[in-house]
Amino acid sequence: MATSDVKLLGAWPSPFALRVHIALNIKSVDYECIEENLRAKSQLLLQSNPVHKKVPVLIHHDKPICESLAIVQYIDEAWSSAPSILPSDPYDRAVARFWAAYIDDKWFPWLNGVANAQGAEAKKAALDQVREGLVVLEEAFGKCSEGKDFFSGDRIGYVDIALGCFLGWVYVAEKRNDVKLLLEDKMPGLAAWANKFCEDGAVKDVMPDKDELLEFANMVLDARAKLNASSNN
Amino acid sequence: MATSDVKLLGAWPSPFALRVHIALNIKSVDYECIEENLRAKSQLLLQSNPVHKKVPVLIHHDKPICESLAIVQYIDEAWSSAPSILPSDPYDRAVARFWAAYIDDKWFPWLNGVANAQGAEAKKAALDQVREGLVVLEEAFGKCSEGKDFFSGDRIGYVDIALGCFLGWVYVAEKRNDVKLLLEDKMPGLAAWANKFCEDGAVKDVMPDKDELLEFANMVLDARAKLNASSNN
Repeated sequence: MATSDVKLLGAWPSPFALRVHIALNIKSVDYECIEENLRAKSQLLLQSNPVHKKVPVLIHHDKPICESLAIVQYIDEAWSSAPSILPSDPYDRAVARFWAAYIDDKWFPWLNGVANAQGAEAKKAALDQVREGLVVLEEAFGKCSEGKDFFSGDRIGYVDIALGCFLGWVYVAEKRNDVKLLLEDKMPGLAAWANKFCEDGAVKDVMPDKDELLEFANMVLDARAKLNASSNN
Repeated sequence: MATSDVKLLGAWPSPFALRVHIALNIKSVDYECIEENLRAKSQLLLQSNPVHKKVPVLIHHDKPICESLAIVQYIDEAWSSAPSILPSDPYDRAVARFWAAYIDDKWFPWLNGVANAQGAEAKKAALDQVREGLVVLEEAFGKCSEGKDFFSGDRIGYVDIALGCFLGWVYVAEKRNDVKLLLEDKMPGLAAWANKFCEDGAVKDVMPDKDELLEFANMVLDARAKLNASSNN
């Protein structure tokens, strides 16, 4: 596969772009990563994802594919001979899709809500909600992993990618609020899983450095808070 | 397939449950439909979908599957010898998943926003947003259908199901606000598609009667408005 056949329009802090990096690594696909400047989006991004104008976009044989979970499933199907990302059994696939949807539709908005919460009380409520979601995911991990390292068993799969891409942002939320979210006593499965995930060969070279992510988040979120404060004056 | 092997926990006004009815009909699966009372949910529903406690749930061989799009994909994969719901080509599948995600993540919240909008100005803005989304979907229809009747070509498929399940609720929004949303001049493709969809053999017997749906919506939404008004006093 020539490098130019597969391009990823991404942005290093994006958890959604990270999903695509990991999926391509699992399949050992050579690809070119084009880093987008999200304040001045490229013509290629705007043309490739005219509906959302967002990263990630995968371009394969000059055809764009958008939406991170659709891309991950595309990668699984287009490179079907390499290790599978989704399980093969229809029921197990449905369970994996259910949890990926839970992460995107429920849990991620809660995590995002921590950054947007105004005031100590709202912040505490948002952090509690993230933790409650993690307790639900801890239970899911117990059922899905059947005592193995990952949601998918021995190897990283769909739910691992869907959740693991946010680990850097969980760290950011912890540090910015001086709390612990991934509690080893309440979520021993997830805590061990998070370490294994970050050490995995498909992940470790594409996972953003967590302190660089924290620095980036501090810059972006503090600038946003100042803007909000000045517009409220 | 014995009837008791496949159970659908549904509710007749639910567009998400309607997706599952249509998918099962496409596959000619015999199934038992258990109508849930959403004000007094059954133990079976609470046990089968403990995370969201919502319909639809498909129970196949005593195993529950939740989330309507995950269920539709499960049905496509579990009854793989019957007519396909998703296209076979990975790129076409990714495009179908993209549009289904657009419908659920963007367009449906806008449609829902019409019911929740307070005041004439907010109502108008919400209706405009729904129309703008339909214009985007009209363009998608043009590209996906390639001049045929459905998003998937000659037969109803994934995007048809994802969008078509809301047609009754589009009618409700039109009638309650005395406007037209599916504009034949601006969306000729979608307008013709909507008629074909409702007439289809897999759809016509499970699509709720639109005036019964309107009556139901008037009852629920007017009761909600009264409740809001009294709590604001």
